[in-house]
Amino acid sequence: MSNDVSDWWSTSIIDMAPGQIRMRGHPIQDLIGNVTFPQMVWLMTRGDLPSDDQARLLECALVAAVDHGPQAPSIAAARMAVTCGLGLNGAMANAVNMLDDVHGGAGEQAVELFGWIDEAEQAGQPLDEATATMIDRWQADRSKFIPGFGHRFHKPEDPRAPRLLGLVDEAAQAGTVSGRFAHIGRAMQHCLNARKGKPVPMNIDGATAVIYAELGFSGPLARGLFCLSRSVGAMAHAWEQMQQGGRNKGPTPPAYRWTYTGENPIED
Amino acid sequence: MSNDVSDWWSTSIIDMAPGQIRMRGHPIQDLIGNVTFPQMVWLMTRGDLPSDDQARLLECALVAAVDHGPQAPSIAAARMAVTCGLGLNGAMANAVNMLDDVHGGAGEQAVELFGWIDEAEQAGQPLDEATATMIDRWQADRSKFIPGFGHRFHKPEDPRAPRLLGLVDEAAQAGTVSGRFAHIGRAMQHCLNARKGKPVPMNIDGATAVIYAELGFSGPLARGLFCLSRSVGAMAHAWEQMQQGGRNKGPTPPAYRWTYTGENPIED
Amino acid sequence: MSNDVSDWWSTSIIDMAPGQIRMRGHPIQDLIGNVTFPQMVWLMTRGDLPSDDQARLLECALVAAVDHGPQAPSIAAARMAVTCGLGLNGAMANAVNMLDDVHGGAGEQAVELFGWIDEAEQAGQPLDEATATMIDRWQADRSKFIPGFGHRFHKPEDPRAPRLLGLVDEAAQAGTVSGRFAHIGRAMQHCLNARKGKPVPMNIDGATAVIYAELGFSGPLARGLFCLSRSVGAMAHAWEQMQQGGRNKGPTPPAYRWTYTGENPIED
Amino acid sequence: MSNDVSDWWSTSIIDMAPGQIRMRGHPIQDLIGNVTFPQMVWLMTRGDLPSDDQARLLECALVAAVDHGPQAPSIAAARMAVTCGLGLNGAMANAVNMLDDVHGGAGEQAVELFGWIDEAEQAGQPLDEATATMIDRWQADRSKFIPGFGHRFHKPEDPRAPRLLGLVDEAAQAGTVSGRFAHIGRAMQHCLNARKGKPVPMNIDGATAVIYAELGFSGPLARGLFCLSRSVGAMAHAWEQMQQGGRNKGPTPPAYRWTYTGENPIED
Repeated sequence: MSNDVSDWWSTSIIDMAPGQIRMRGHPIQDLIGNVTFPQMVWLMTRGDLPSDDQARLLECALVAAVDHGPQAPSIAAARMAVTCGLGLNGAMANAVNMLDDVHGGAGEQAVELFGWIDEAEQAGQPLDEATATMIDRWQADRSKFIPGFGHRFHKPEDPRAPRLLGLVDEAAQAGTVSGRFAHIGRAMQHCLNARKGKPVPMNIDGATAVIYAELGFSGPLARGLFCLSRSVGAMAHAWEQMQQGGRNKGPTPPAYRWTYTGENPIED
Repeated sequence: MSNDVSDWWSTSIIDMAPGQIRMRGHPIQDLIGNVTFPQMVWLMTRGDLPSDDQARLLECALVAAVDHGPQAPSIAAARMAVTCGLGLNGAMANAVNMLDDVHGGAGEQAVELFGWIDEAEQAGQPLDEATATMIDRWQADRSKFIPGFGHRFHKPEDPRAPRLLGLVDEAAQAGTVSGRFAHIGRAMQHCLNARKGKPVPMNIDGATAVIYAELGFSGPLARGLFCLSRSVGAMAHAWEQMQQGGRNKGPTPPAYRWTYTGENPIED
Repeated sequence: MSNDVSDWWSTSIIDMAPGQIRMRGHPIQDLIGNVTFPQMVWLMTRGDLPSDDQARLLECALVAAVDHGPQAPSIAAARMAVTCGLGLNGAMANAVNMLDDVHGGAGEQAVELFGWIDEAEQAGQPLDEATATMIDRWQADRSKFIPGFGHRFHKPEDPRAPRLLGLVDEAAQAGTVSGRFAHIGRAMQHCLNARKGKPVPMNIDGATAVIYAELGFSGPLARGLFCLSRSVGAMAHAWEQMQQGGRNKGPTPPAYRWTYTGENPIED
Repeated sequence: MSNDVSDWWSTSIIDMAPGQIRMRGHPIQDLIGNVTFPQMVWLMTRGDLPSDDQARLLECALVAAVDHGPQAPSIAAARMAVTCGLGLNGAMANAVNMLDDVHGGAGEQAVELFGWIDEAEQAGQPLDEATATMIDRWQADRSKFIPGFGHRFHKPEDPRAPRLLGLVDEAAQAGTVSGRFAHIGRAMQHCLNARKGKPVPMNIDGATAVIYAELGFSGPLARGLFCLSRSVGAMAHAWEQMQQGGRNKGPTPPAYRWTYTGENPIED
């Protein structure tokens, strides 16, 4: 057999032989029962095993983002999907697919923006100045939306953010992480509040991005980890909907219908 | 505002008010940092918090099934997806969508079949007899494929199965679970080996289904939990593929192409 | 190069060589500009080219099912998807994925049930008797829901059904189709109305299933063709939503939220 | 009932009342049997009905792109999906989801780049100069990949491109379209060949983008129309795979497996 076929898909993640499976070089039977799920997530995506303290901080982020209710498009899609006949796999797939740039990309973007600020600070700029400069640069180059901040519902603050930042502080004091991305997050909060003249609360994407950045995850993985976390909520809601029943359940009660704005409407 | 609109989507999973989020009645800030990810999965899908021992057994199943390499259609789909331009959300969605009845349904089916055997045993039939009867009934009513057993690659045994069963035994001895589904799984193994005259190894779906049944998860959730677990592998492989690069990567090296079996072939 | 790799994916649909593409044996450049899209759909799925009259009847079914408004879960999913950041491909994928057994399977099921009735009639049973018998058998063996009939909104009739049946009648008179599935559809309508004591209107799935059965498409393709047709509506709505804007648009106006039915609710 | 709920989803595409459906103001029964599928696609996405000649040119593009064989990730995903247990809806969804920026975005990008060149030409720049300038600008601002040109397989030319361009020429002579985007496409071809010193064949994305631009479709719809077209191939291949059977079919023959590149490999 020629190597070009087996080489077509190459990976450093998993090796197999009949009766044997190794993940990142570890026999699977040594991992099962000995590492936690967050440690496994870290091992699979990064190649090494985290310390217990690192894994616990990662776990906090994964726990925090599982759900935000059935008005989130991801959760709504999962619930509608089961009323269309899909199993939990299809419902979860439809939910996770929704977590694109707008619904699921803010964490990835926040990690990137935090990185810009961190780099400027490491290059000698004071934190507040670096923060202001990089927020300006983000809005000029990328988007008027500052990733990780602002919430249309949770005002004045998202209850997940201070809790997660507090846990980062504890981890920093214990030497698990440096704590400098928590500083960056708070500097951004301060800057944005001042600019707006009102609270622009750090949201779940911002708070989890602080953790992911502290732990050294790259931006795209921040999105992937959010997808993993929100999959729990999608599964729970899809399963609840399955038990509630319902067939072809649309977004709003059928009696309301929608507003037609085009030509030649049907007269009542 | 009329209640019919808010009633259209009702849930016992999550409640919210500005600045407040409760999951199954627990303020989110009390859960973050205090419950593990597997505990959160249990809480979200079932409504109550499991004991630490129950959560640890669940965690073993979630860790065991994260990946089976790039020849699994789910993982292949995730890797191909990123070469088509999708982000990790799209790659994970394509992977999880693949976990339908054949690729992801065996765990769900195994929980159901275990339940049949359990019921027959509880009704007084000896275990071996109940097992043989219900395997026959499954093949008559459902499919010739017995869910949870047989592997085209891992012979004579899938390394994950004995490890997981051993952990169930430990949990049974500790009183965390009853252990009767481990007995059922082994009875099925014995019966199938005898019928085939060769090992028909319990596979990952069978072994995790033992755990899910022991912990009281219903069949559909066995599928959902597998989707959650395999999402980790999909994320890891998609991320690795993203770093490898590649554009529009098809299943096999391009030089091989495919075999055309129709009319009027192109002559060389 | 060994054949086993190219044989792994074999197809009678398409053959290629550098600078050459043949679909079902026809050079692509001979098809482009010479066959209609519905003819191409037929050629690809069945291998032969339909007559112009057959293709026109197929086209009627494809035109009829493109959309049923934003309360259909498929269309809602497409619109929500673009507000989450997905492109038209992702929006269309989420929509089409929704067309599972409940939302998109009725056409497939109707083709199958029509086939049962047709077989009984061909075996000598009078049409009305065959119809009644097979409706009973469907409800006993499959589901209380009779596929292709009943509509919660279009009463007393779905405007698409009589139009499509009229076109089948014309095609039957012209000798394009036999017309016997239109008879079957009407016999079912008659039987169901009598049983319910009120109109149980043939819906779009029933009416298009008549056409697909008349043209000899098998059940699963009836679902596939519906997916193709509805993709047009998904694309149009997703594109309209993209122009309207909106970010993370949930199913209902945010002010309504949802009804929490679980323990320990947040007090106002 | 308050209007805010019905206003939450507003559309100019479809209006409904019991027994009535209007698409863009046209009663559905007047469209069925009277407009072709491509006309319906145009009506739904743009609001007006095209002439027969415009619709025929659109049809050529839709026919041309239906399939490129099972090595295209979209088609491979559709075939793998059915071996995992998905129906045609899930298979088609997985295929269409794959048509993201790299696999399905070139048409959208080509329409945009053609537009840049057109604008420069309309502003007075000679075509060849406008073409060279805008290709440079694309590579500087967007990507080194020029959308719509280059093929790793079809050399020296993709058989679909000259056929489609010839049909645009005919349509231009008949006054159906202006023909100026065909000029732009050929100018790009000329420029790229000269720069590379070898043929850089216009591919299916480039050729269909010429048609979409000639007909006035915006870029995102070029992607959507490709998704619609390729859905036909996905359906045909998924259906063929369903008939072939196969369970959990991975990308390559199982015996080849993959190449493990990580630490601590399993020794043979």
